[in-house]
Amino acid sequence: MISGGVLIAVLTWKAGSPTWLYQLSKAGKLCVPAMNVNDSVTKQKFDNLYCCRESILDGLKRTTDVMFGGKQVVVCGYGEVGKGCCAALKAMGSIVYVTEIDPICALQACMDGFRLVKLNEVIRQVDIVITCTGNKNVVVREYMDRMKNGCIVCNMGHSNTEIDVASLRTPELTWERVRSQVDHVIWPDGKRIVLLAEGRLLNLSCSTVPTFVLSITATTQALALIELYNAPEGRYKQDVYLLPKKMDEYVASLHLPTFDAHLTELSDEQAKYLGLNKNGPFKPNYYRSAAA
Amino acid sequence: MISGGVLIAVLTWKAGSPTWLYQLSKAGKLCVPAMNVNDSVTKQKFDNLYCCRESILDGLKRTTDVMFGGKQVVVCGYGEVGKGCCAALKAMGSIVYVTEIDPICALQACMDGFRLVKLNEVIRQVDIVITCTGNKNVVVREYMDRMKNGCIVCNMGHSNTEIDVASLRTPELTWERVRSQVDHVIWPDGKRIVLLAEGRLLNLSCSTVPTFVLSITATTQALALIELYNAPEGRYKQDVYLLPKKMDEYVASLHLPTFDAHLTELSDEQAKYLGLNKNGPFKPNYYRSAAA
Amino acid sequence: MISGGVLIAVLTWKAGSPTWLYQLSKAGKLCVPAMNVNDSVTKQKFDNLYCCRESILDGLKRTTDVMFGGKQVVVCGYGEVGKGCCAALKAMGSIVYVTEIDPICALQACMDGFRLVKLNEVIRQVDIVITCTGNKNVVVREYMDRMKNGCIVCNMGHSNTEIDVASLRTPELTWERVRSQVDHVIWPDGKRIVLLAEGRLLNLSCSTVPTFVLSITATTQALALIELYNAPEGRYKQDVYLLPKKMDEYVASLHLPTFDAHLTELSDEQAKYLGLNKNGPFKPNYYRSAAA
Amino acid sequence: MISGGVLIAVLTWKAGSPTWLYQLSKAGKLCVPAMNVNDSVTKQKFDNLYCCRESILDGLKRTTDVMFGGKQVVVCGYGEVGKGCCAALKAMGSIVYVTEIDPICALQACMDGFRLVKLNEVIRQVDIVITCTGNKNVVVREYMDRMKNGCIVCNMGHSNTEIDVASLRTPELTWERVRSQVDHVIWPDGKRIVLLAEGRLLNLSCSTVPTFVLSITATTQALALIELYNAPEGRYKQDVYLLPKKMDEYVASLHLPTFDAHLTELSDEQAKYLGLNKNGPFKPNYYRSAAA
Repeated sequence: MISGGVLIAVLTWKAGSPTWLYQLSKAGKLCVPAMNVNDSVTKQKFDNLYCCRESILDGLKRTTDVMFGGKQVVVCGYGEVGKGCCAALKAMGSIVYVTEIDPICALQACMDGFRLVKLNEVIRQVDIVITCTGNKNVVVREYMDRMKNGCIVCNMGHSNTEIDVASLRTPELTWERVRSQVDHVIWPDGKRIVLLAEGRLLNLSCSTVPTFVLSITATTQALALIELYNAPEGRYKQDVYLLPKKMDEYVASLHLPTFDAHLTELSDEQAKYLGLNKNGPFKPNYYRSAAA
Repeated sequence: MISGGVLIAVLTWKAGSPTWLYQLSKAGKLCVPAMNVNDSVTKQKFDNLYCCRESILDGLKRTTDVMFGGKQVVVCGYGEVGKGCCAALKAMGSIVYVTEIDPICALQACMDGFRLVKLNEVIRQVDIVITCTGNKNVVVREYMDRMKNGCIVCNMGHSNTEIDVASLRTPELTWERVRSQVDHVIWPDGKRIVLLAEGRLLNLSCSTVPTFVLSITATTQALALIELYNAPEGRYKQDVYLLPKKMDEYVASLHLPTFDAHLTELSDEQAKYLGLNKNGPFKPNYYRSAAA
Repeated sequence: MISGGVLIAVLTWKAGSPTWLYQLSKAGKLCVPAMNVNDSVTKQKFDNLYCCRESILDGLKRTTDVMFGGKQVVVCGYGEVGKGCCAALKAMGSIVYVTEIDPICALQACMDGFRLVKLNEVIRQVDIVITCTGNKNVVVREYMDRMKNGCIVCNMGHSNTEIDVASLRTPELTWERVRSQVDHVIWPDGKRIVLLAEGRLLNLSCSTVPTFVLSITATTQALALIELYNAPEGRYKQDVYLLPKKMDEYVASLHLPTFDAHLTELSDEQAKYLGLNKNGPFKPNYYRSAAA
Repeated sequence: MISGGVLIAVLTWKAGSPTWLYQLSKAGKLCVPAMNVNDSVTKQKFDNLYCCRESILDGLKRTTDVMFGGKQVVVCGYGEVGKGCCAALKAMGSIVYVTEIDPICALQACMDGFRLVKLNEVIRQVDIVITCTGNKNVVVREYMDRMKNGCIVCNMGHSNTEIDVASLRTPELTWERVRSQVDHVIWPDGKRIVLLAEGRLLNLSCSTVPTFVLSITATTQALALIELYNAPEGRYKQDVYLLPKKMDEYVASLHLPTFDAHLTELSDEQAKYLGLNKNGPFKPNYYRSAAA
């Protein structure tokens, strides 16, 4: 039973999204306890925001040598991954547009200085299209037909569904492999789009994952597994659980010395004032947004 | 009974923190249902992050006319308010140090490019000290004794407790009011520190709150009150509730037209793939970090 | 004769541009030596770039309390002043468009991440219009007729010529003074634009100039005057001169201690390798762009 | 004679610095006219600032896969190359220190938010050392002895002189080639530093130069050669000349369409007001800082 829990905890990382775990649970088909480590704050921030902020640049450079300055880019999705991609490209001098379905994320994109558009409004003018939605068929053939010559198309989201690559495997289009992980798809009129990693994850296919990020992700998962294994009978049922806040904080604290970072300790008086234990957890479980 | 709920929902905004509501609830002293609107994502982001990103600059300029470029600043606390202050000052060319007690926020500060220090490590060298902790006695007399001449001290946190202003009201120190909301506190050797708003909130005392932020906050509260008022008997007990995700999204969507922002709609196929209703909510209730 | 030189050196600062000095010189009407202190690197950077980076935010906040996040802004002119305005607003989450006549500055705007447009392409959609061109009639009545309701119009350039304010003083438009330095100009259909400082310099009218900037500017001018006064007969003719590089460096070195900044000294071997005197000047006179 | 001028114009690009041309000229040994294309604004900005802003990240990632977030970095030299490196790393969340010999550049580093230090103040704590000085022996053995384990050392300056690599070729140190262009130099106590490209230029050895930058550089040189070739007898003597401003502007204008950038044209009235030809040059020859 518990070893099943172990298996699932690992899988959630691979899938990049715990959505199906919750679906299984809702459908009553989850036969073991599962820990959603994907939504712990440290995992989210490092595996998604901080890692992608760097790997979007790295992945694009290694495959295309494109210069970022002055380029027009559309980023589909403004979750943690999209936020990382947008921040990095903006800093490098790109002009970035964002598409979103969720009004909360959309409003954040606005406040961070990105024009919120529908894909069809900018598809003719952009130099780079990046998907980070976790959705399917975000970039479909219709859009690719209208892209300009040389447009780079890649996926930073959770699987190979976001770009409808299948729609490009038709007789009238020619594929030309120009470099490992880089295909030119050529229209009858000679227009080319540059498809990276055949629509699979750019950050895994064409970039590297820093050891620091792997350390955080692995630590988070290991702690989740230890918790599931050590928990007394009955603490966890056949359901999906978030990583306890204290473990999340522990993962973070283990990685602070890397930066020679010095944490401040609460005085007894301050801990009492805040109603906190001096050793944490420092935030209530409901408190995620402010920590994010 | 319900009108009590109304009252509490409003108060939570004034207090800036729902901590005491949870304490009341835990102590069994909460006699009406209460909505914690403070921790809705839109409220958090706008009232804290986005608003403070602008008001820290505004408040400091109006009171002191200080130039930000090249200045050394320490920001105590790296929650949403601290993140906003740090981002703004970094963008203006300040060198920013951060103090934190929570390792998760601390690690974020590191990844955002700020040295994480204890206050005593930098107190002698900084030009500006800003508190955003929600804690008490963060800047105590001992630290103020060691600040350099002309150091500016102000509070962006949740009340007037963060700077121990009482400790400055002693006979050996002279207070000189140099402008509305600006006091010079003068040491016997002639050293002056510049205390703003007598340690009360800088953003409320010395800056303005944009109407856009007020609109978001007011909308959030109004919806919370309407929900409490309209809810069928028994939906809410004498407890503290988070604003339903769908209302949070609704508040955001009402404000998108201001930016001429165009939201993308899910296709039927996509909604089914994600297991979502096309009208939202687009995120599960547990999902806060990625939206944040 | 020399006292005339003194007078002119001071005036060049007031005018903000030495163009007319060169015009006088070219026309043979310059009757004394003049020092163009405006184009010394420290003066340019501080009085223009660094100062305006802060004062654009300050001037807009004090007059309008506008929130910058998500706002669409067009900045006319991408010299030092325009660069400062653009950088500040971008950092605060505005979406910034730039207009330019000079292709070199235009290309820099592109590489810094700004869409280069003609004013008429964006005039209907922007929330704020800022002029920094040194030119006249950049924002004419035709453009103001097409601005949207509530659009803020201000001038950060060198005089009151950039916005054609005279064209707004016609019978069909109503002026309403809503605050010191802030006028609403009201069209017959009720549309209002918010005109700041009646088109005069926002940074001088509605913001403050930091003492640090004044110190740099004043030091630069004083050194120029001393040089003109002390120079042996014949060193300076009835012409316009740039501040000697070494004086420019000296002004900078006098201000480094403010930031506790530690300059590195050349070793004898390094000085010889570079063909430099260890005490400077460190750059040839032609070298301006790399230092800028 | 003229063909010699051609040769020299090309060489100046290869050397990256025209210093020796001026030295030849001063020594009376320059036997042909030479054009200093290196200091044209477009060349400076693209080959140095904009290109290095991207290639520092690219070069470091391809060789070391280092994560930038939270890393402490010292950049030696704050010319155009140093400015590009600092801006990029700051944007990626690194904490950046700067060393400089020139007080003007030093003051700019301060205003841009970087602590100005001497190398020995930070050498023990930094994770990455980058040289961009154009000088020799900036990072000597003494400093490398004090670096911490794993410190990355690389050169973005003009030749292989900045890091004293020869001092590392001693019997007590072991070299281990861990990847193409990456050596571990190992101290007797096991400490390793990571030396990139054996101290040669990182941007040429371990990164790529975008075609856009090559286009600008090549265009600039071609125009310089055409000018030297076509110039009437006597226009150019055996001296070093800066590229005429108008050609510099022309190079820029040729590259604007890439960004779909729309230049504004002066009206007759405006051209007259500014005393300019409507087709440029738009800046006097002395005007470099504001364009930079």
